[in-house]
Amino acid sequence: MIRLNDSYERLDETYLFAKVARKVNAWRLSRPDADIVRMDIGDVTRPICGAAIEAMHRAVADLAAASTFHGYGPEQGYAFLREAIAAGDYAERGIDISPDEIFIGDGAKSDIGNFPDILSAADTVALTDPVYPVYADTNVMGGRKRFISLPMIPENGFVPCLPEETPDVVYLCFPNNPTGTLLPRENLRRWVDYCRANGVLLLFDSAYEAYVRTPGAVRSIFEIEGAREVAVEFRSFSKTAGFTGLRCGYTVVPKDLTGRFSDSRKGSLHDLWLRRQTTKFNGASYIVQRAAEALYTPEGREACRVQTDSYIANASLLRESALEAGLYAVGGQDSPYVWVKAPGGMDSWSFFDRLLELGITSTPGSGFGKSGEGFVRLTGFNSEANTREAIERLRRI
Amino acid sequence: MIRLNDSYERLDETYLFAKVARKVNAWRLSRPDADIVRMDIGDVTRPICGAAIEAMHRAVADLAAASTFHGYGPEQGYAFLREAIAAGDYAERGIDISPDEIFIGDGAKSDIGNFPDILSAADTVALTDPVYPVYADTNVMGGRKRFISLPMIPENGFVPCLPEETPDVVYLCFPNNPTGTLLPRENLRRWVDYCRANGVLLLFDSAYEAYVRTPGAVRSIFEIEGAREVAVEFRSFSKTAGFTGLRCGYTVVPKDLTGRFSDSRKGSLHDLWLRRQTTKFNGASYIVQRAAEALYTPEGREACRVQTDSYIANASLLRESALEAGLYAVGGQDSPYVWVKAPGGMDSWSFFDRLLELGITSTPGSGFGKSGEGFVRLTGFNSEANTREAIERLRRI
Repeated sequence: MIRLNDSYERLDETYLFAKVARKVNAWRLSRPDADIVRMDIGDVTRPICGAAIEAMHRAVADLAAASTFHGYGPEQGYAFLREAIAAGDYAERGIDISPDEIFIGDGAKSDIGNFPDILSAADTVALTDPVYPVYADTNVMGGRKRFISLPMIPENGFVPCLPEETPDVVYLCFPNNPTGTLLPRENLRRWVDYCRANGVLLLFDSAYEAYVRTPGAVRSIFEIEGAREVAVEFRSFSKTAGFTGLRCGYTVVPKDLTGRFSDSRKGSLHDLWLRRQTTKFNGASYIVQRAAEALYTPEGREACRVQTDSYIANASLLRESALEAGLYAVGGQDSPYVWVKAPGGMDSWSFFDRLLELGITSTPGSGFGKSGEGFVRLTGFNSEANTREAIERLRRI
Repeated sequence: MIRLNDSYERLDETYLFAKVARKVNAWRLSRPDADIVRMDIGDVTRPICGAAIEAMHRAVADLAAASTFHGYGPEQGYAFLREAIAAGDYAERGIDISPDEIFIGDGAKSDIGNFPDILSAADTVALTDPVYPVYADTNVMGGRKRFISLPMIPENGFVPCLPEETPDVVYLCFPNNPTGTLLPRENLRRWVDYCRANGVLLLFDSAYEAYVRTPGAVRSIFEIEGAREVAVEFRSFSKTAGFTGLRCGYTVVPKDLTGRFSDSRKGSLHDLWLRRQTTKFNGASYIVQRAAEALYTPEGREACRVQTDSYIANASLLRESALEAGLYAVGGQDSPYVWVKAPGGMDSWSFFDRLLELGITSTPGSGFGKSGEGFVRLTGFNSEANTREAIERLRRI
C-alpha cells in the first residue's frame, strides 16, 4: 500500500501566500478595470546590479567552452564564494567564521526548511508568534508535535520572552519577518546565554540583515559571545541583492556545535548537515554563485546598499503614512516590512478586505500566528511610484 | 538538549564518491609526476550547447532591467518550461502527461532525495542491488529500516525479479546507474502490473533516458499502461545536456496517484508533493529554466543528441576494450556507463587499486551494494582522447 506521511494531515490546508493570491485573483476577475497596488508579497522589483549581471555573463561564457566548463561543483558551495562571505560578512566585522563553516544553498527557504531533517522528531520547538510560516510547517512535516509560542506583541515591545518550559530548538528572525522590528543586543545576549545554559539550539534567520541601519544593532548572531556553541545562522541574497529568482543563500554551522543522539552519543551538527547536503543536494548553480561572489566587490556592495536603501525608504513612507492615518504601525526602519494594526479592533482578514477595496494588497497578520491577529504586513518592495500611490489610497481609509 | 536525528547514526560513514576522491588524492600526492585518467565520476565534460548558452545570456539580460525582471517564480516551475517538457518529452511520444503534473526542481538528486519526505517512515523499500546510493541513504535518513534487496547480476541478466515480500515502495532506474543496462519492456510491464495489483509505489529514475538508442526501448515509465496509477518519474538535464553545474531537473507526479494515511484517509501524492515543494523549496533559477527551455528547440535537441552520442561512443569503446582484454562487461550501449567485472575473483576495491596503479580511476561496484562486489563502474563522460588513453592503459592489465 502507498502509505503517506501522516504529518501532512496535520498541516493547515492552505499556505498563506497562496490564499492571498487566490483572493486577489478573484477580486481582479470581478473588477477587470480596477488596478491594484501590491503591498503584500515579499518579492523584490529592482533589477540585479551591474556587478552581478556582468559576473553571470562571464559565467555563462565559461560554460560555453570545454576548457572553462564547470560541471558538478562542491555540494557545500565553491570556495571562491565561501571565502568571499567569510571575509566580507564576518571577518571584516570581527566575527570568527571560517569558510568551511559556510554552506551555500539555493536559498534560505530551502535551508531553513531542510535543516530540521537532522534533528530529532521528538524535539520541542519554540517559535515566535507571529512567525514566518515555513518554520512551523516544516517542523510539522518533520513529525514534531510540541511547540512553544513566544508572543511578539505591542505590550512586550515585540521582544519575545524566555519560555517557562525549556524547548530543544528556538527560531529567531531579526530584523523580523513579519513585524519589521529589531531585537536589542542585550535581549539577544540573554537568549544566547539561555540557550547555552539549557542546551537549546538557536536557529537564527538573518535574511534581512542587509536592512539594518540603526548603529550598533546586531546583524549576525555570531556577534554575541558564545553563539558559536548554540547557533546556526541562515542568510539569503534574495532581499540583499534581489536574487529571489536566481536562488542563492547560505547557512553557517559552526564546528563547535554539538548535539546528542538518543543513545547519548555526541554528534556534530556541521557533520550531519554536510552529510544531509552531500546526499540530498548537489550545490547551487555555478552561474548564481559567481553572481553572489560579485556582490562582495566594492561595486556590488554599493549596489546592495542603494537597493536596500530604496526599499527601506518605501517602507518608511508606508509606516509614516499609517501613523498619519491614526493607525498603530512598527517596522520600516531596519526592515522592508511594516506591521500595521487594523483600526477599531477589526480582524486581519477584514482589514485585508478593506484594503483590497481600496486597491491595496496586504498580508493578513493572522496568517503568521494568533498574535498577528488584527495586523497586516505591508512591504517596501514595490516601486517608489506604486508605494506613493498606495499611500494616497491609504489616506481614504 | 540539542537532540539529533538518530537515523543519521545508521548511515554508512562515508559517501562512496567522497571515499574515491580521497583515495585518488592520496595517490596523486604520492606520485606528483604521474597523470591520471578519470573514468570514475558521473560528471560531464562537454560545454553547454549554443541554444542554452544564448538563452542564458538573454535571461541574464532580462534580470538587468526592471521591466523584464523576474523575481520569485512559481515553486513548481515556469509554465514555459513545463509546457515544453509536456510537449517534447511526452505528447510527441504519445504519452499523456499534463504540464501541471510536472514539477521543475534543482536537479534529480534533490527531488529523488526529498520525495520520500511525503511517505510514511514505516514503509518497506525495495531497492535493486547494485543501486545509486542516494535512494538508500535518503530512506535511512527518513527513518526507514526495512529494505528489500533486488539483485541485478549476470545470472539474471541484470533484470530484478519481483520480490517475495511485498514492499510499499520500489525504486527502478533504467537505463541503469551503475550497470548501464536496460530493462526490457515486458519486464517493466510486469513491474507496473505488480505495483498496481499490490498497491506499491514505483519511483522511476529515468535520468539517463536521453541515452536510449535501441529501437523500441522504454524511455519513460508512462509508456507502460497503468503506470499513471502507481509511478513517479524523475528526470534530469544533467546528463542529457551537461547541466550538472547549472542544476535543473524535473519530477512527474500524475494526478491519478493516491496513497493512504494511517487513519486510512486517501491522499493525492501530487497534492502532498506540491505542498512539500511550496513549503521547502522556492523554484529553480529563472536563468537555468530558460536554458532548459532552449533544449526543446530543434537546435537544442540536435545538440543533446550529439552530446549524448559522444558519451555513448566513449562508453562503447570502453566496453569493447574490456571485452578484448578478456573481461566481462555490460552497458555502454544505451548508457554512458560500463560495468566491468574484475578478473580472477578480485574484489571491487582491489580492482579499483589495480586500475589506479595504471592511472585509471573507477568507481568500485561494492559501493553500490553487495551484488556490485567484484565489479567497477567506468564512464564515457571523459573526452574521446582521454578515453582512448584509458583504453591503452587497460590493455596493460
